[in-house]
Amino acid sequence: MTKVAVTKRVHFNAAHRLHSSHLSDEENARTFGRCNNPNFHGHNYELDVCVEGEVDPITGYVVDLRLLKQIVTDRVVDYLDHKNLNLDIPELDKSNPTAENLVVVIWGLLKDHLPQKLCKLVLWETPRSYVEYSGE
Amino acid sequence: MTKVAVTKRVHFNAAHRLHSSHLSDEENARTFGRCNNPNFHGHNYELDVCVEGEVDPITGYVVDLRLLKQIVTDRVVDYLDHKNLNLDIPELDKSNPTAENLVVVIWGLLKDHLPQKLCKLVLWETPRSYVEYSGE
Amino acid sequence: MTKVAVTKRVHFNAAHRLHSSHLSDEENARTFGRCNNPNFHGHNYELDVCVEGEVDPITGYVVDLRLLKQIVTDRVVDYLDHKNLNLDIPELDKSNPTAENLVVVIWGLLKDHLPQKLCKLVLWETPRSYVEYSGE
Amino acid sequence: MTKVAVTKRVHFNAAHRLHSSHLSDEENARTFGRCNNPNFHGHNYELDVCVEGEVDPITGYVVDLRLLKQIVTDRVVDYLDHKNLNLDIPELDKSNPTAENLVVVIWGLLKDHLPQKLCKLVLWETPRSYVEYSGE
Amino acid sequence: MTKVAVTKRVHFNAAHRLHSSHLSDEENARTFGRCNNPNFHGHNYELDVCVEGEVDPITGYVVDLRLLKQIVTDRVVDYLDHKNLNLDIPELDKSNPTAENLVVVIWGLLKDHLPQKLCKLVLWETPRSYVEYSGE
Amino acid sequence: MTKVAVTKRVHFNAAHRLHSSHLSDEENARTFGRCNNPNFHGHNYELDVCVEGEVDPITGYVVDLRLLKQIVTDRVVDYLDHKNLNLDIPELDKSNPTAENLVVVIWGLLKDHLPQKLCKLVLWETPRSYVEYSGE
Repeated sequence: MTKVAVTKRVHFNAAHRLHSSHLSDEENARTFGRCNNPNFHGHNYELDVCVEGEVDPITGYVVDLRLLKQIVTDRVVDYLDHKNLNLDIPELDKSNPTAENLVVVIWGLLKDHLPQKLCKLVLWETPRSYVEYSGE
Repeated sequence: MTKVAVTKRVHFNAAHRLHSSHLSDEENARTFGRCNNPNFHGHNYELDVCVEGEVDPITGYVVDLRLLKQIVTDRVVDYLDHKNLNLDIPELDKSNPTAENLVVVIWGLLKDHLPQKLCKLVLWETPRSYVEYSGE
Repeated sequence: MTKVAVTKRVHFNAAHRLHSSHLSDEENARTFGRCNNPNFHGHNYELDVCVEGEVDPITGYVVDLRLLKQIVTDRVVDYLDHKNLNLDIPELDKSNPTAENLVVVIWGLLKDHLPQKLCKLVLWETPRSYVEYSGE
Repeated sequence: MTKVAVTKRVHFNAAHRLHSSHLSDEENARTFGRCNNPNFHGHNYELDVCVEGEVDPITGYVVDLRLLKQIVTDRVVDYLDHKNLNLDIPELDKSNPTAENLVVVIWGLLKDHLPQKLCKLVLWETPRSYVEYSGE
Repeated sequence: MTKVAVTKRVHFNAAHRLHSSHLSDEENARTFGRCNNPNFHGHNYELDVCVEGEVDPITGYVVDLRLLKQIVTDRVVDYLDHKNLNLDIPELDKSNPTAENLVVVIWGLLKDHLPQKLCKLVLWETPRSYVEYSGE
Repeated sequence: MTKVAVTKRVHFNAAHRLHSSHLSDEENARTFGRCNNPNFHGHNYELDVCVEGEVDPITGYVVDLRLLKQIVTDRVVDYLDHKNLNLDIPELDKSNPTAENLVVVIWGLLKDHLPQKLCKLVLWETPRSYVEYSGE
């Protein structure tokens, strides 16, 4: 059987503030600098969702991209888009909404809800920085 | 003499909320939808600053791009980056921080401070939408 | 009053074949080369729709981008996406579906249906070639 | 010895229609939706061809990129560009021309004809979706 | 008649050093900083060549893009690609090879050799800076 | 513990000439073609620096991206930017400045100076070609 990885890129934008509940205000200011602005700042996020599996000999699909897009839209984009990651997302209540923590949250939102095995997420926070997570 | 337009692209990111002080809460919610989230959302902004002038026969420059970048960084990027456009920017106190109003504010921050004539600003709010302003 | 131009980028893909009913088969083959393949080829098109107008002092909008996107989706994307430009689009029945003719057809689909003045269309046929039309 | 992976990106465009000979017309319409349009649609494809090997201590090359580009042009681009994947490509006669099946066909066109080991193909079907294949 | 602008993007790369024969070595060092490195540095240039004209009612073309690309390749890309702009290009013998001076030289190489009116050149020197020239 | 990979993209530009001290002038000309121009040519390089590690439960960081950017700027960008890779960079004195050799040099500049494990470098030499190195 032939294994192919299929990736769909989606977009959402959100506000956040880097601030750790484990640190004092002074430590937060020193550690996160401008990203600690109490009034928040924000980003356009691009998310690549990669699933891997065998190519179906009937359809020629690993996964129907329209279905993959629909699931990612329902479970991730509609949930995070135009939101404040510190105030509106319970999964981030106890953790700092860095790209690292956010990509792990998104993994949790998706991993049991896809028709094929989720193999990698790439989350772009700016056009020149991104994080990757493979569930390890 | 030869006229050339020179453009530098810069980046900043910010939080905002679309909300007009001239509208009721209900009208704001209806008019701006998800963009009216009271907890804010945010964007990565890309800004193209275009100046136009004659090519200096000695230097071959319309403008030194490092100087142009420095002025735009000092007057725009450092002022807007990692900020909340509704709360942190006095020029937007009385107006809704749409891309349209923001590009006009940026024009005001730059127009009397450049070594050549500012001819156009292009402000990308997402990778698939942008506004242009030429000072008219 | 302040005039700003606002642009939304949308995507569609389509098959076409360059073939002029005014030319013989031999002339078509010579004029259009590989683009004359009778079995068609195709493209991902990116379309930038630019409208221009005064910024509304209440909303801060020239146009609500969600509304602009909706109109362009309804009138252009849903009409052209996943279609054969030679066989499925009556407006191109009598003319060769070049990017030039297609951008003029799209202008006709949009110009009387937008809340602000349509000022420019940019149609990318490949990542390295595009046409622009301003209604003249 | 030092192992480096070298990638060249190439472009081609083609028409296709998603349609499986193993399904009824009704099942095809339901499974593939707009992609099943009998008149075809099309895409600009971007293909990243990645080879891996040891850096030659004399030339400093894993592979001469001009040679790699020439082979990929001769064997893939000239073969697929401006073609109809359903009608013009014998390797896809019996299978649905999804991105998954296409990337496997391209692997077969290249794998025995490169001066270094082919290690990965990335095939972009739109600017927001792609498939990856490593020969497994 | 319908007027459309058609643009082809091409690529070349070159070495250069910013250095004006009208300035002393010290003035050159002060004016151009790192760009004055006597050993040169270099860039990947992207060039957008825009021609404008009426759409031919027979072919649907303003210009055959393959012809436009061929002319630009023959007259500009083959002439500038993999060259040293200070040492290899006679048109720049007496002038500093800034992007401003280079775009004017390219205009001269093209303007009398195109099947339609050259209306604009855009020359990207880096992914975040570009110059535009319209022949004025 | 959760492992995430974090990548920062930086930019530099440089001149170079492909020329091997192990080959005769004639062999160099034949092997490297236009890239062997004795007057040099040049490129805009984009470099992706990827580090991998566990997410710190206090900060939510694998690495502070501002710190990562600072180190890469200090050790790589300031060292290579606006330089001639053949003449100005001692690490390349004895080897041909191909992208392959350059990426290995950059690995050496970074690997013992990062707060987390360097896991991959991607070096784009043009917008359509890149090399990857993982230290093997």
